[in-house]
Amino acid sequence: MAVYTDVGDEALDAFLATYDLGTLRSFKGIAEGVENSNFLLSTERGHFILTLYEKRVSEADLPFFLALLDHLTERGLSCPRPVHGRDGAAVRRLAGRPAAIFTFLDGVSVRRPAVAQCGAAGEALARLHLAGDGFAATRANALSVEGWRALIERIGARADDAGRGLGALIAASFADVSAAWPAGLPQGTIHADMFPDNVFFIGERLSGIIDFYFACTDALAYDVAICLNAWCFETDGSFNITKGRALLAGYQAVRNLSAEEAQALPALAQGAALRFLLTGPMIG
Amino acid sequence: MAVYTDVGDEALDAFLATYDLGTLRSFKGIAEGVENSNFLLSTERGHFILTLYEKRVSEADLPFFLALLDHLTERGLSCPRPVHGRDGAAVRRLAGRPAAIFTFLDGVSVRRPAVAQCGAAGEALARLHLAGDGFAATRANALSVEGWRALIERIGARADDAGRGLGALIAASFADVSAAWPAGLPQGTIHADMFPDNVFFIGERLSGIIDFYFACTDALAYDVAICLNAWCFETDGSFNITKGRALLAGYQAVRNLSAEEAQALPALAQGAALRFLLTGPMIG
Repeated sequence: MAVYTDVGDEALDAFLATYDLGTLRSFKGIAEGVENSNFLLSTERGHFILTLYEKRVSEADLPFFLALLDHLTERGLSCPRPVHGRDGAAVRRLAGRPAAIFTFLDGVSVRRPAVAQCGAAGEALARLHLAGDGFAATRANALSVEGWRALIERIGARADDAGRGLGALIAASFADVSAAWPAGLPQGTIHADMFPDNVFFIGERLSGIIDFYFACTDALAYDVAICLNAWCFETDGSFNITKGRALLAGYQAVRNLSAEEAQALPALAQGAALRFLLTGPMIG
Repeated sequence: MAVYTDVGDEALDAFLATYDLGTLRSFKGIAEGVENSNFLLSTERGHFILTLYEKRVSEADLPFFLALLDHLTERGLSCPRPVHGRDGAAVRRLAGRPAAIFTFLDGVSVRRPAVAQCGAAGEALARLHLAGDGFAATRANALSVEGWRALIERIGARADDAGRGLGALIAASFADVSAAWPAGLPQGTIHADMFPDNVFFIGERLSGIIDFYFACTDALAYDVAICLNAWCFETDGSFNITKGRALLAGYQAVRNLSAEEAQALPALAQGAALRFLLTGPMIG
C-alpha cells in the first residue's frame, strides 16, 4: 500500500487549474503501487489516477515513461493514458514531487491466474510489443546482467542471512546466466515487470496493463521469460506447464517467437528469476 | 490512511455474489477512515465503498449505525446508503471481519473551511438532526461525562508527559464541565464526530456527510458544540467568530436553538474540547 505524500487543498486546486478537467468531485489516496503515491481523482470529465513520483522513480526517466504511454495508447493498447495540461505538459510538480494524471483503467488484478488468464496475458504482452514498434526513445535496462553483477557485489554476505547457501546459489546462477546470456535477439520496448498485479481483468477479459516504471529497451523474449516466471508457477514453487503453454500460445497468436528466441527462453527465465530475487523482499 | 485487511479474489467474489451488483470492474484499497479498512468497489451498477470493520468499531453497534444510515438516506440526507444483499442483510462477513457496502459519495473534505462552508456545515447538521426524528433505536454516548471520568483515571499521570500542567488543566476542566453539564436539553440522534474530514463538498456545495461510527443519542446542541470547536478555530488556536456566527446561522436556518440550548453551548463546547483531547493523538 502506498500513499507517502499528503496533498493540500489549495495545492491540489492550483495543480488542477492547469488542466481542462472541470470541477473536482472526489480525491482519495489509494493503496496501489509500491513506488509512488497514487490518488483516485474524479472530476466532471471522469475518473483519473493522480501519481506523485517518490524517490524510487528517477525524474529523468519520466519523459520516457510518459511518452511510451502516449505512444501505446495512441496505438490502442489499454494502459493508463497521460492527461496533458493546457500547456501540453504531462508532468508537473505537486507537493514538491513530479506528478502526472492518467486515465483510470477499470479492472482488478488476479492473485492466482487461471490458465485462460495466462493465455490472455501472453496475448496482451505480444500486443504491447507490437504497439511499441516505431517508438523512437530508448532506455537501457539497468537491471540486466551488468546490473545484477553490481547488485550481487553490494548484497555480499547478506544473501546468506536470508537463507543458508543462498550466496553460493546466486553466484553459480549468475555464472550460468552471464555465460549463456543471448545476444542478437529482436529488441524493442519491454514492460519488464508484467506480474499479475500489473494486469487488470474484468471477468475473463483482460482490460489493461499498468505500472510501466521498469519499461526499457531490451530483448522482447526477455519480457516473455519474466511473464512465464511470474504467471505460471504455483504457490508451492512448481511450474504449471499448462499455464506456460497457454501463455506462449497466447503470445504467438499475435507475434511469433523465432527459433532463436524460443531457444533462449531457459537462459532468459533464469536471468529473470535472478533479477527479481536480487531486488525482492527476501534480500533486495 | 487505512487498509488493515487484505481481501482475496475468491473471498471477494463469493461475498459479491450475495449482492445484486453485477460484474466487478474495480477494487482498490483507499486511504480513508482511521477505524476501518475501506475499498473503492466499482461494478456494473456503479461506484461503492466496501468497509471492513476492524476492532475499534464494536460489531454489536453495527445494526444501530446501519439502520441509522438507512433511515437518514430514506429521508433524503446525503450520506452513505447501505447496500442490502439479496437476503436483505446489510452486514455480513468478509476476511474474518464484519463488512458492509455503501453507495459512493462524491465530494472532497476541506482542511481549512471557509466561512460559507462553516455555514453549510451548520445547515447540514440541522438537517441531519431533523432527519433523525422518528428513528426509534437509541445508543448511549459512551464518550460523555461519565466516560471522560473513566478516561481521565486511566490516563492518570501520562497527561503530564504530553504537556507540563496538562493533568491539572484536565482535572479543573472536568470539574467545571461536570458541574455545569446541562440536563433536559432536546435529545436525538447526533453524529458526534462531524469534523471537516467527515463532510464532503463539491466546489462550494456541501455534498454529503460520512463516518457515523460515533453516532449516538444525546443532546442535539452537543453536536452543535462539537462542530463549533471543529470548524471555527484557526490553526493558531484563535476562535473565528465570523465562522462561528455562520455555523450557528446555518444551523438555525433549519432548526431553531432554544434559549436553553444557546445558554448551554459554552459548557457543551468545553465538554467537547475535553472529549477530543482525551481521545486524541496527544494523550488518547
